[in-house]
Amino acid sequence: MKKGLVQVYTGEGKGKTTAAIGLAIRAAGHGLKVFICQFLKGRRTGEFILIKKALAGKIDIFQCGSEKFIITEEDKREHRETARRALEFSKKALVSKDYDLVILDEINVAVHLGLIDLKDVITIIESKPESVELVLTGRNAPSEIIERADLVTEMKEIKHPFKKGIGAREGIEF
Amino acid sequence: MKKGLVQVYTGEGKGKTTAAIGLAIRAAGHGLKVFICQFLKGRRTGEFILIKKALAGKIDIFQCGSEKFIITEEDKREHRETARRALEFSKKALVSKDYDLVILDEINVAVHLGLIDLKDVITIIESKPESVELVLTGRNAPSEIIERADLVTEMKEIKHPFKKGIGAREGIEF
Repeated sequence: MKKGLVQVYTGEGKGKTTAAIGLAIRAAGHGLKVFICQFLKGRRTGEFILIKKALAGKIDIFQCGSEKFIITEEDKREHRETARRALEFSKKALVSKDYDLVILDEINVAVHLGLIDLKDVITIIESKPESVELVLTGRNAPSEIIERADLVTEMKEIKHPFKKGIGAREGIEF
Repeated sequence: MKKGLVQVYTGEGKGKTTAAIGLAIRAAGHGLKVFICQFLKGRRTGEFILIKKALAGKIDIFQCGSEKFIITEEDKREHRETARRALEFSKKALVSKDYDLVILDEINVAVHLGLIDLKDVITIIESKPESVELVLTGRNAPSEIIERADLVTEMKEIKHPFKKGIGAREGIEF
């Protein structure tokens, strides 16, 4: 594999997490080893279920979130602790060189919500081994992360059915 | 599954095909049946290899393209014939109700290149059974397709390494 880059998928539109998952599938198809940490997500996503069941050994996926929404300060403390541990764990995976592609899903949101410090994410980006591709997803990517990325796509919402009152659907939105 | 929608992923940025593939993985994780036709693509993509190898029976994927680039009128004739057959084949899959999610990857590009007629794609959209989710990807989505979609994301290129002279990389771009 050639020099690995830092990729960011951000914006309000649908397709950020799925783009990262699709990239994982593409990479695994060419024999690359993939690590995915889904920040904030506790509810079992379709991608988590399928990867665990059918792609173990090719893609390692972890969910590092809670089923709960963030409402009270108590909940926020719990989320902060979970996100902090997820970040430590992801950093180990990144520097281990066991993986060719490392995906930190929704990490931008974790920063935006104040669950993890921006400076810790920057440290992770700066500790990326040259050969590893690092992907960060989530809306509200801070400019400091965008500056340090090689490839940035903004998923721009042109039309979204939630605006028409259609809620999140199993298999499509999660 | 609830009412299926028409989704479009377009724009110049990276992440259109991968978003569709990620959606396929998510859907399959929840037990939905998925059909993917990759228009224009002849070179074996990582997603094609992995899905064929590890996800057969959950996701049916077909590549309906050529290894050749479109240069001569002769080549264009061949591409046109291949794309036309891919469209017929995809339409059958869509109306068969064998699938919950039908992905027509790069179909917008096939229209843009004049390989298939816009009106035939509109016919396909209009023949979608209510329960099926239909996803169309590729840059330059015609406004007639966008009008008929329920969800449209434009992958907006904020930064792209090809501009820095880095070429397409196996496992990442295909």
